[in-house]
Amino acid sequence: MKKEILDLLKTQFESEELLLGEYGIEREGLRVDAEGRLALTPHPKVFGPKLGNPYITTDFSESQVEVVTPTYTSMSKTHRVLTDLCDIVNNQIGEEYFWPQSMPCDIPEDDQIPIAQYGSSCQKAIDAEEYRKGLSARYGSKKQLISGIHVNFSFTEEFIQKFHRIYGKGESYKDYRDRMYLKMVRNFLRYRWLVIYLTGTSSTMHETYIAECVAKMHPTGDGSYIHPTCVSFRNSDCGYKNEEPLYPSYESIQAYTEDVRRFVARGDISAPKELYTQIRMKAEGVDNILESLENDGIKYLEIRTVDLNPFELTGLAMVDLDFIHSLMLYTLLKEESNYMDWQQEGLDNEEGVAVEGLNTEILLTRDGQPIQLKDWALEILDELCEMSEILNLNYGETLLTMIARVKDPKQTYAYRIRELTKEKGFIQANLDLAKKHKEISWNRRYATQAFTEYELSTQILIKECLNRGVQVTEIDPSDNFLILESRGVKHYVKQANKTALDNYITVLAMENKVVTKIILKEHGIPVPDGIQIDAPDQSKHWAQVFAGRPIVVKPKSTNYGWGISILDQGGSVEDIQKAIGIAFEYDDTVLIEEFLIGQEYRFLVIDDELVAVLKRVAANVVGDGQSTIRDLVALKNQDPRRGVGYQKPLKKIVFDEQTLLYLKLQGLTPESIPEQGVQIFLRGNSNISTGGDSIDVTDTMPQKYKDLAVQAARAVGAVFCGVDIMIEDVAKENSSYGIIELNFNPSTDMHAYPYQGQERPIAAYTLKALGLIDDIGLTEEDA
Amino acid sequence: MKKEILDLLKTQFESEELLLGEYGIEREGLRVDAEGRLALTPHPKVFGPKLGNPYITTDFSESQVEVVTPTYTSMSKTHRVLTDLCDIVNNQIGEEYFWPQSMPCDIPEDDQIPIAQYGSSCQKAIDAEEYRKGLSARYGSKKQLISGIHVNFSFTEEFIQKFHRIYGKGESYKDYRDRMYLKMVRNFLRYRWLVIYLTGTSSTMHETYIAECVAKMHPTGDGSYIHPTCVSFRNSDCGYKNEEPLYPSYESIQAYTEDVRRFVARGDISAPKELYTQIRMKAEGVDNILESLENDGIKYLEIRTVDLNPFELTGLAMVDLDFIHSLMLYTLLKEESNYMDWQQEGLDNEEGVAVEGLNTEILLTRDGQPIQLKDWALEILDELCEMSEILNLNYGETLLTMIARVKDPKQTYAYRIRELTKEKGFIQANLDLAKKHKEISWNRRYATQAFTEYELSTQILIKECLNRGVQVTEIDPSDNFLILESRGVKHYVKQANKTALDNYITVLAMENKVVTKIILKEHGIPVPDGIQIDAPDQSKHWAQVFAGRPIVVKPKSTNYGWGISILDQGGSVEDIQKAIGIAFEYDDTVLIEEFLIGQEYRFLVIDDELVAVLKRVAANVVGDGQSTIRDLVALKNQDPRRGVGYQKPLKKIVFDEQTLLYLKLQGLTPESIPEQGVQIFLRGNSNISTGGDSIDVTDTMPQKYKDLAVQAARAVGAVFCGVDIMIEDVAKENSSYGIIELNFNPSTDMHAYPYQGQERPIAAYTLKALGLIDDIGLTEEDA
Repeated sequence: MKKEILDLLKTQFESEELLLGEYGIEREGLRVDAEGRLALTPHPKVFGPKLGNPYITTDFSESQVEVVTPTYTSMSKTHRVLTDLCDIVNNQIGEEYFWPQSMPCDIPEDDQIPIAQYGSSCQKAIDAEEYRKGLSARYGSKKQLISGIHVNFSFTEEFIQKFHRIYGKGESYKDYRDRMYLKMVRNFLRYRWLVIYLTGTSSTMHETYIAECVAKMHPTGDGSYIHPTCVSFRNSDCGYKNEEPLYPSYESIQAYTEDVRRFVARGDISAPKELYTQIRMKAEGVDNILESLENDGIKYLEIRTVDLNPFELTGLAMVDLDFIHSLMLYTLLKEESNYMDWQQEGLDNEEGVAVEGLNTEILLTRDGQPIQLKDWALEILDELCEMSEILNLNYGETLLTMIARVKDPKQTYAYRIRELTKEKGFIQANLDLAKKHKEISWNRRYATQAFTEYELSTQILIKECLNRGVQVTEIDPSDNFLILESRGVKHYVKQANKTALDNYITVLAMENKVVTKIILKEHGIPVPDGIQIDAPDQSKHWAQVFAGRPIVVKPKSTNYGWGISILDQGGSVEDIQKAIGIAFEYDDTVLIEEFLIGQEYRFLVIDDELVAVLKRVAANVVGDGQSTIRDLVALKNQDPRRGVGYQKPLKKIVFDEQTLLYLKLQGLTPESIPEQGVQIFLRGNSNISTGGDSIDVTDTMPQKYKDLAVQAARAVGAVFCGVDIMIEDVAKENSSYGIIELNFNPSTDMHAYPYQGQERPIAAYTLKALGLIDDIGLTEEDA
Repeated sequence: MKKEILDLLKTQFESEELLLGEYGIEREGLRVDAEGRLALTPHPKVFGPKLGNPYITTDFSESQVEVVTPTYTSMSKTHRVLTDLCDIVNNQIGEEYFWPQSMPCDIPEDDQIPIAQYGSSCQKAIDAEEYRKGLSARYGSKKQLISGIHVNFSFTEEFIQKFHRIYGKGESYKDYRDRMYLKMVRNFLRYRWLVIYLTGTSSTMHETYIAECVAKMHPTGDGSYIHPTCVSFRNSDCGYKNEEPLYPSYESIQAYTEDVRRFVARGDISAPKELYTQIRMKAEGVDNILESLENDGIKYLEIRTVDLNPFELTGLAMVDLDFIHSLMLYTLLKEESNYMDWQQEGLDNEEGVAVEGLNTEILLTRDGQPIQLKDWALEILDELCEMSEILNLNYGETLLTMIARVKDPKQTYAYRIRELTKEKGFIQANLDLAKKHKEISWNRRYATQAFTEYELSTQILIKECLNRGVQVTEIDPSDNFLILESRGVKHYVKQANKTALDNYITVLAMENKVVTKIILKEHGIPVPDGIQIDAPDQSKHWAQVFAGRPIVVKPKSTNYGWGISILDQGGSVEDIQKAIGIAFEYDDTVLIEEFLIGQEYRFLVIDDELVAVLKRVAANVVGDGQSTIRDLVALKNQDPRRGVGYQKPLKKIVFDEQTLLYLKLQGLTPESIPEQGVQIFLRGNSNISTGGDSIDVTDTMPQKYKDLAVQAARAVGAVFCGVDIMIEDVAKENSSYGIIELNFNPSTDMHAYPYQGQERPIAAYTLKALGLIDDIGLTEEDA
């Protein structure tokens, strides 16, 4: 690569401009049972219709899940969304596992492999099934089960426009862009062998795969087969390839489309999309790809070389993705040789590396001349390092990792998976990895990896959208603002449940305790009796009126418990005056209400439906007769659901002044050792935010209180409504009760991921209320 | 009155309990033309259907407006609402005047007096007209034109319940309450002469009144007639009375209803409501009054003795209302004599005082014994003073005023109006007062007297409701929260335009400038280009990008202009970094937008309709060649529309540091004398809140910008929307323009009462959007 070009580019482009692009990833993978056999169950219903979910669908087989990220301008974001999608698959496939290998698991014969079912609801569905039947007939179903990674890559249009402005020399923008991408395609085909060497992982297989392929391998027992030098069977002639090599021209779009039409015409392939190349040129149009390429030009490139990496939950390590990115820039900048037979040479090198890459002596050919893999690889990686350094791309670490893989083949994935297969057998080795991935996904099921700048409730909603195939557009992360779209319905959503479903005055009425009470009373719903004080000089009068009665004194409009005094045993005139004074610090109006005795419950109502009831219990530990309170707290805090800040559904218990005081009042210190089974409370308040436990009691709550909560939400006209009900004793037939407060932006994560009890699919209820999905259907809990 | 009773009551009741009640006032009044002739125009259309407006309707004649306050627990609030209603009438009757006298103006003969028209849309309307025709036939239309004040009085139910608990002795609550009110009625009838003496004002009349009545008076020229001793012709036999005195029993409800039924049966009156007593017992039911009295008991008392006070805009002075209140308490507490002929005596005393009250020698009879008016009056007033003192009622001042009227008849209204009539003539004296009242009402047309704890925009809305007959329920004044109801439609409204019409997410989208821009752009609406900065460490990069370009730097989510820097000439990297730093003090996200040149206009859209466009001009004065800037400001500040705080549509210009600096930069001081016609600006910013001028430009604004504003509101789905559009030059065909901001809670009072230009009936548009009225119809401006 010419250094002067890099030096020139450096003056013209910020590294940011070179790094931004449009990136998307597709990952296929088989569903398998606990013994590593292909799952013969249908695609999980929760993912909705296969043609309707843009994120999670099937590929060839009903048992072959395909996850598809949207495109993002950062590779890292794309990869994190891929992680979220794979987490969702892991959590939604019940007792099954997401097979981590490109080469299939323990599979039945061709006719037993279920082809993806689309129903027969529309022509598209019928076509999809017909196409798969054709593939099965032509290539056999087994081969179709090979899974892989596709990386979709493009520069931003702004970048290409700038390139065009500087270097375009009068050529039209579309032609210039096509020429850029065509050069990249040609160079990628020249250097694809390096991608295979560095990322290949399909060096082993199972005896149930196609017999002729198995025959090329060596058995190691347990039905496992390995090969001494193989890197990627998927990229060998045993992989997913056309029957005969096809070399369409990449000199121009016109030449390319002519060739592909010819291949179809003479029956080499049934359709343009059956041309299985290592890299594809993609256009705006999907169904009429050739015409769209001609008319609109190349929109992005699809890199199809990469095997599933079984060591990675996503099937693709970030470091490999970064390498691919650096290589794509290289394909743009690297000058081309004028060697004529470069396509044949590219295929030879590809298949050579695929089968013999771990042979340290392997020779490839470059422009017709033999060259050692290692020498050529290091030469390319050196150039990449120089490029990264000059253009300030920060790929040094990544490239060092790749150089190490070249210098020491034992560091390749292919070598590592072969050794693991020798040790555990093909099925067990991959199944163990799948189980590990599944456990990781489960433990972090409440959050996302890609949307951590959002509040937890919004993350949960986004995750549900990815799960259900509802399209998410992020419009202002700092404000938790999204657009959700599905089936022609479009909603703006803020903070997970602020939507167009609620009207403005309902929210304002709920924000105002006085107005809320007026409305509830009007609807015959029991609320605590009380009065309102508008001026501090009325304090004494009302203090006299309420002296000795159990009351709550609170400011009119705060929501976080600030300024509230609970005088549940009744207070003196002075006590009450003091409480009124405190409340006046928070609002111009102060309320005195009768104190309702009992336990407070949070009822969550969404769209006229009671979806969850929660009891909140103050931070506590239960003794084991041996551990100190401090140790018990530490143990409880190890729960991955507990954290600090707004990213976890439960909070860590901390020893602050209030905790210590609260323990002291019980004659305890953090070093006290509670007896077996004795529950010790560490605080008086039951807020989740101070380490309290959330306990789902939806199923045991008597119906009449659930009805009351729905009735209260209806009274104010709220679609999303948290209803706080104080109940003397739920078990008592004629228990007293009353509504303490309504909340227009109720916390949802505490219901979705409670400390104890059933996890409730709140986000699904939200999507249903918004008309974005039809039913709650299967959920993580049910699955 | 027995002192021991007062002493006992003092220990049992707080003065507040004795003063709270349910008070309502009705005031009738004729519409007259500029010459004091009865207006023959129809009842103003703006008040809506007569049967549909509970506040402003007609009485007997089409030309006789009747205003009716809702009931309030405080006399003072009721009186202030009466003021607002009278202000509305004054402002809505165009060139006509609201006749301030009980005795009619210059009226035509009976058959020329228009009876109130109700249309024939329903049975109720037909009945109302039929009833009036019957009255006209029986009493003549002239008598029906006499107008007066009715005061509706009741204790609160809580008060009566407490009385009943203490003194009830096993009697049912309903019976006890009836007995309380019956005693009050009897006592009121005994003491009503005192009310007539103290408040009577109908001591003069016009020659066009009924001939037999005029014949009893002395002419003073100009068609005016006076009488040497008369206090209240309205309460004499020339007033609005039954043909023969009727004395129903007030011993029990049963006895009363039997008597009234007998009067109807024998044809003395056509219906129970035709029994014109000085005080009426009112029940829950209106149409079936006697049955309702029997079944539900007495709900309140209607005091009908009081003449219109022409010296008062409302027709009723607060001091007289206070006196009536004290007298009502007196009627409850004062022991009764057992004199049998008390009803006849009450009538004799009434008519005696009515016609001869100003005769200082007049003798009344008490329990059959003669007594001088003055002696008896002072005795009663003394007892009232004692009552007020012991029970801490704070009526001392009021009672002193009344004592003065007794001691010196020249201080009575009757005397004063007689003297004024002698001086100016009957028509002119009253017309001058009416004109004065009308001017006062006009000058304070933008605000209310009764709802001053609300923001001005809410006051304007309440006033429009009173105008249109939309029922207003105040549910939280400190939060500007109302319920508005009309024709079966009910709306909660906060701060004048936060309603159920707007959905929550629309408001949140408008609150967020980034989201607003995304939505507007999506709809093809021009917005300034710009970028968003999420972290201060990006400041330098963006400062470099925007250096030298005209830009605005602003925090993402504030609304009051805080933290905004306008670099309209372009800034250096350092300038921009500094501006970004300032903006980051207000929000976590900062926007940089291209600066649009031109003038900013505020477009107000309500429910898809462009209702007003405003230009805001910075605080300024225009020189006269003689006055200093300080004097010109003082003069401009005299505009009654200018004030401080949130009660006026314009703000006073103040000389603060910024003003002085701004003048200094122009080489001026407050003592400079600008030349004739030269406009001097006192500030750089054009906010109304800092003394800026609001100028309505709705009629001259080109349609395309109005359409754009409506389109923008529609894009975000807003029903109430303030749209700020920057326009390079409205006069230019291809002027550049762009939308700067949308406001979900747009200020409305600046459009309703601009400094210059047409006043826009914003509140009426709001009520129409809410479905509470049918059309904007006539407005203050049109009228």
